Amino acid sequence: MFTGLSVFPLTPFDDSGIDEKRFTHLVSRVAEAGVDLIGALGSTGNYAYLTREHRGLVARLAVETAGDVPVMIGIGALTTGEVLALAEDAQNAGASAVLLSPVSYQTLTDEEVFGLYEDVTKELSVPLCVYENPRTTQFTFSDELHGRVAALPNVGAVKTPGAPLDQAPARIAALRNTLPADVAVGFSLDEFGAGGLGAGADVWFSVIGGLLPAECLAITRAVAQGDVPQALALSERMAPFWDLFRRYGSMRVITAAAAHLGLVVPPNLPRPLREIPPAARQEVAAALDALDVRA
Amino acid sequence: MFTGLSVFPLTPFDDSGIDEKRFTHLVSRVAEAGVDLIGALGSTGNYAYLTREHRGLVARLAVETAGDVPVMIGIGALTTGEVLALAEDAQNAGASAVLLSPVSYQTLTDEEVFGLYEDVTKELSVPLCVYENPRTTQFTFSDELHGRVAALPNVGAVKTPGAPLDQAPARIAALRNTLPADVAVGFSLDEFGAGGLGAGADVWFSVIGGLLPAECLAITRAVAQGDVPQALALSERMAPFWDLFRRYGSMRVITAAAAHLGLVVPPNLPRPLREIPPAARQEVAAALDALDVRA
Repeated sequence: MFTGLSVFPLTPFDDSGIDEKRFTHLVSRVAEAGVDLIGALGSTGNYAYLTREHRGLVARLAVETAGDVPVMIGIGALTTGEVLALAEDAQNAGASAVLLSPVSYQTLTDEEVFGLYEDVTKELSVPLCVYENPRTTQFTFSDELHGRVAALPNVGAVKTPGAPLDQAPARIAALRNTLPADVAVGFSLDEFGAGGLGAGADVWFSVIGGLLPAECLAITRAVAQGDVPQALALSERMAPFWDLFRRYGSMRVITAAAAHLGLVVPPNLPRPLREIPPAARQEVAAALDALDVRA
Repeated sequence: MFTGLSVFPLTPFDDSGIDEKRFTHLVSRVAEAGVDLIGALGSTGNYAYLTREHRGLVARLAVETAGDVPVMIGIGALTTGEVLALAEDAQNAGASAVLLSPVSYQTLTDEEVFGLYEDVTKELSVPLCVYENPRTTQFTFSDELHGRVAALPNVGAVKTPGAPLDQAPARIAALRNTLPADVAVGFSLDEFGAGGLGAGADVWFSVIGGLLPAECLAITRAVAQGDVPQALALSERMAPFWDLFRRYGSMRVITAAAAHLGLVVPPNLPRPLREIPPAARQEVAAALDALDVRA
């Protein structure tokens, strides 16, 4: 499950809440493309902004629609009590794994983060992926803390931002040195995905793969066939996206791309979040055209 | 209302939710001490971790208990929709003002933050205090943005972290230069409170004032009487707290202090938050003893 390409579809909204038809369409697209794992309710799926009721609905729809492809559900929330409730909902929906970031308002200490994972993992019957996202959670894991958390029961993978090509081998070696051998390592910043897999990461946790699964599977397959230069060349073709992600955040950019392809109705962002500016939307359209992507 | 000493009481919890008796006791203590404004459900009151139902209850209890002292209610939340609902609840509870920080998961842009305040202020019938807290919200206001937001209808005050003694006059001058003349300026980092008032800030938004109102009112009165050196000397007596705040966060430290005084039942923190270590709790007790504080 924690291998190859793991993708994070958007959550389409409509006036009544979740746009079920468009969400299941996004899930079907990536399942049919043959991704290894579908991550519903990741940051890209706007989990943090949704009610428990809507998150339960999305989890059920994702599992129903994904067929044989395993589904991982994001269960992050500000309080441990909410996280435990969401973990139960995800497992009841049939999730194969859960994804947990240390969401914060007050900046968390290492002991608080460890305690969160300790409290949650002991209640799980499916594997948990530790989700490190310093930008949204204000928390950076030390390698030592990664090791302590990953040694807890039911931890299956670590999703970490990753590192540029020249630093990826050392980053992965440092993690392998601290993590139990059966815990998978994956990079999550898309621009580092191909290089991370090439340097030996188990999985690429991909935002863009939720929208462009074929293009991303071509990268994972090139790595699997030992052709890392080809994987890097395919990744380089998406460089306009990496630049847009740095400037506007990957979620906002992928939302604009999905809107351009007619897969979500813009703005598809919970206020106060807003669409990227018109000029940036034109860049997104040009980047899709250059890849010859169609919905 | 936005003058002198504004204080932020803790929200005491019990097994059933809000510990109403202990909360009203905390509010009575500061109201009787004669503070100028009571801020319920600030960061110190753990607003971000509470349900809408509990926040409504706390707002009603605060207004009922505060008597003639005006009450400001924190209405921050991740989505604009939630903020608008909380604003309505606060006004229905009889709040004299609301306090809004740009709470985020995805880091917000200037335009998103401006849009949030634009959407909320036009629905208000009481003044709003703009709450800048870069540590919890991952957002720092430029002075230009402060000026744009403060020019919106119903903005009454800006709560900003403040600046050390030697920089406070310039900081206040820069804000006065960009804000409308009728918008009050207040510092919120307690160690900068006395110096801020001495340099001409309108109000000190104080965490420690929610627990030690008499000690803080002595500072605001010294400034009002023109004796800034005395205000600074009184603030310096609390320096052990300023040091503890920097190391553990003011909310965790004040929670430990309130527990030491028997005003809340420890840990009184929503998990994953945890009590400060035992050695730090001893420092808190020593700091209270040095001030000769009793419950």
